[in-house]
Amino acid sequence: LSASPGRRIEVVAVEGIGEIGAGDPLGGMLAAAASPDSGDVLVVSQKAVSKAEGRTVALDSVTPGGEAMELGRSLGKDPRLVELILRESARIVRAERGVLIVETRSGWVCANAGIDASNVPGEGRVVLLPADPDASARRLRAEIESACGARPAVIVSDSFGRPWRLGQTDVAIGCAGIAPAEDWRGRADREGRSLAATVVAVADELAAAGDLVRPKDGGTPAALVRGAAHLVTGEDGPGAAALRRPADRDLFT
Amino acid sequence: LSASPGRRIEVVAVEGIGEIGAGDPLGGMLAAAASPDSGDVLVVSQKAVSKAEGRTVALDSVTPGGEAMELGRSLGKDPRLVELILRESARIVRAERGVLIVETRSGWVCANAGIDASNVPGEGRVVLLPADPDASARRLRAEIESACGARPAVIVSDSFGRPWRLGQTDVAIGCAGIAPAEDWRGRADREGRSLAATVVAVADELAAAGDLVRPKDGGTPAALVRGAAHLVTGEDGPGAAALRRPADRDLFT
Repeated sequence: LSASPGRRIEVVAVEGIGEIGAGDPLGGMLAAAASPDSGDVLVVSQKAVSKAEGRTVALDSVTPGGEAMELGRSLGKDPRLVELILRESARIVRAERGVLIVETRSGWVCANAGIDASNVPGEGRVVLLPADPDASARRLRAEIESACGARPAVIVSDSFGRPWRLGQTDVAIGCAGIAPAEDWRGRADREGRSLAATVVAVADELAAAGDLVRPKDGGTPAALVRGAAHLVTGEDGPGAAALRRPADRDLFT
Repeated sequence: LSASPGRRIEVVAVEGIGEIGAGDPLGGMLAAAASPDSGDVLVVSQKAVSKAEGRTVALDSVTPGGEAMELGRSLGKDPRLVELILRESARIVRAERGVLIVETRSGWVCANAGIDASNVPGEGRVVLLPADPDASARRLRAEIESACGARPAVIVSDSFGRPWRLGQTDVAIGCAGIAPAEDWRGRADREGRSLAATVVAVADELAAAGDLVRPKDGGTPAALVRGAAHLVTGEDGPGAAALRRPADRDLFT
């Protein structure tokens, strides 16, 4: 099957990186393991980024406040975990039926502020999202360039649930070197009519594609996407923050 | 960059298929253009499927009823389009600020019941979603097998908006030959702990990956994904219907 330029992408798991610890030079490790080119997109799991940034917390070190105690009781959740979720959150979106959906301080709406206990070494330790995932992506991009001279786009991805649909898909919570939304509005369709409402969240689609080659039992912190160089920019750009829907354009606040 | 088996996928645009008309043998056309193998996944755009199934309507042929007139006025939408949306819908989820979000008769929550006017030949014609996208996927799979002997998985994909995030991503509204959700719950993570809540909506991630190679100005009705044979099943399986979140597990009805 042949295809025009830009119509073929390849997504490859980046393997051979061991357990990641606080302070590890993740950009250099990714550069060595993936050998990216400047037109590539490196999709890095949030968990790998958070571990390198030391964003893990021992639940035993957390003293839940009154709101966390109450919410923990009503939701059947560990109040120490709820306390961490509240600290990471700008607001609670839903708290019912055992589910706590919040808007994080970075502006992402997700369950449990993205805090997760899978694949974390040490009993009772959890991983928070990076404090500023766009800054994490920019920093990783710079570290990769320092290590190997190439400037691939970097996407920090996480698995989010969705309303109305079961299962999780990976989305971009941070990025650098890519315009996260590709805007076709105003361009003509094949009939010459203006395309009405087509903005493609390409950073989210790249994150989803990357997830397809990363098994969930750990050990694969990243995926390299080749063939999407038309989406990669020299500038770091606006980051995934550009994908946040303003509250006045959201019907599900 | 090397990778273990199953850790590399390739996504290729299926080109060279012209404008699709009602009654066209889409399965055979896709088989000829893509030459799929049985372990491949063919992601086909909803619009191509709908056109082949004759699911286009001239707005001039539609007489809006009272509810459509009223909703059209309050939302600033063509009442004939609103009439079609209501006919395709099981219920209205939101109708405000110029946006009409419904649950389709197939159970998908999306804007305008997925009805679209881009890339439709003929002034004032719109394309409805397939009446039963899972049945469409099964039929296409059978047609492809008849045409070339291979039984790739088939995903019917469409671009949906999302709460909280700007831009659209492609999701699976129908599928055959693939378990749409990959369930890691109960399996152990690398620390031996049970993975708590990881169900990956792989059919949606494959749809998103396919969208990355399909430009929005038309002419690329499908994408072929190679390297995901571990997700392809001999049986047609439950279809994308298995990704519908039951109302009692949804906080955003």
